[in-house]
Amino acid sequence: MTRLTLDISMSLDGFIAGPNQTLEEPLGKGGERLHEWVTRLEAWREPHGLEGGETNADSEVVTEALAAAGAIVMGRRMFSGGEGPWEDDPNPDAWWGDNPPFHVPVFVLTHHERETVVKEGGTTFTFVTDGIESALEQARAAAGDKNVALGGGADVVQQYLKAGLLDELQIHVVPVFLGGGVSLFGSLGIDAELEQTRVIASPSVTHLRYSVRR
Amino acid sequence: MTRLTLDISMSLDGFIAGPNQTLEEPLGKGGERLHEWVTRLEAWREPHGLEGGETNADSEVVTEALAAAGAIVMGRRMFSGGEGPWEDDPNPDAWWGDNPPFHVPVFVLTHHERETVVKEGGTTFTFVTDGIESALEQARAAAGDKNVALGGGADVVQQYLKAGLLDELQIHVVPVFLGGGVSLFGSLGIDAELEQTRVIASPSVTHLRYSVRR
Repeated sequence: MTRLTLDISMSLDGFIAGPNQTLEEPLGKGGERLHEWVTRLEAWREPHGLEGGETNADSEVVTEALAAAGAIVMGRRMFSGGEGPWEDDPNPDAWWGDNPPFHVPVFVLTHHERETVVKEGGTTFTFVTDGIESALEQARAAAGDKNVALGGGADVVQQYLKAGLLDELQIHVVPVFLGGGVSLFGSLGIDAELEQTRVIASPSVTHLRYSVRR
Repeated sequence: MTRLTLDISMSLDGFIAGPNQTLEEPLGKGGERLHEWVTRLEAWREPHGLEGGETNADSEVVTEALAAAGAIVMGRRMFSGGEGPWEDDPNPDAWWGDNPPFHVPVFVLTHHERETVVKEGGTTFTFVTDGIESALEQARAAAGDKNVALGGGADVVQQYLKAGLLDELQIHVVPVFLGGGVSLFGSLGIDAELEQTRVIASPSVTHLRYSVRR
């Protein structure tokens, strides 16, 4: 069976976005620093339709993660930044553009039904209103023999962790303190053992990979 | 000038002690798992007066950290588990025994004055009531050309970080979720850049070392 995986950048103090998130600054104050290590890589820029970029020790980690994902599950706010009924969403479609960087089927957790949106480049957005297990089941069916990647946000990650459904996580620990914002793990309320399966360090980030022990 | 350093074990979800700390279980529920990697090492057991133990990839990290510290600053609760006036403290002296594992001068931050306590093996406990800068200054004078190590807890770490006084930190990231408890960094309310200076991974823990950028 395909594995449910998470690849996410986190500050050393545990945040995946800084304080004061807005639609204009969805990563909050200072949050863009979490992604500088990846957005400068050719391995990331090319699938995002951007020219240029570096190749360094981080490139293989990114290429591997992108290649491993056959489908993605994300929360509604990761999709549009909005919440509530779609007719009230200021940004129901525009955020990820006409050719989103995912290039695989994406399953969006929401409380509000909506027809599947088909984009260019292989990305589809399917809206799932009947819960995280259903979204995972649909994503697994779409992923074939690849993995299902969790796209975030933190609330979605925590829901899957608490349900015991996350198999593997790779945290890209960025050498910065954000001082507040969106805590990746919060206070999960459950304890769990992890198996540390790989550590790769580059000068600007450390990639910590774990399997969740059952 | 000597540097102020921190060496501390943290769960992947950011806790240095689990939920429900008590005097009997000062590390909270599950918190002892944070220290299993170190308490089984000969490099740690020997200065703690314990026989046996392993030598592995983590040993050098521990030996190095112990050798580097010429003095220690810690919070009152790290010293006795208590708070408030000394006459109300159930444990004013017993916690660390007659021959504490520090073997250097220790400066304890407290609001309550007390005479210095001299123990066996080179450990002294000096009680500092006039703030973190004073404690650091006294510890620096005692440390000679070695570093001053922060002994915790989280509140003390956060105070030194906020004051811009911490120079270097090494976090031992333990592959476990504690789900709650004492958050090492909390929401600091300040952002800061770090320089990642070294990463050492063993099968059971990853040692992430940073300098704080001014």
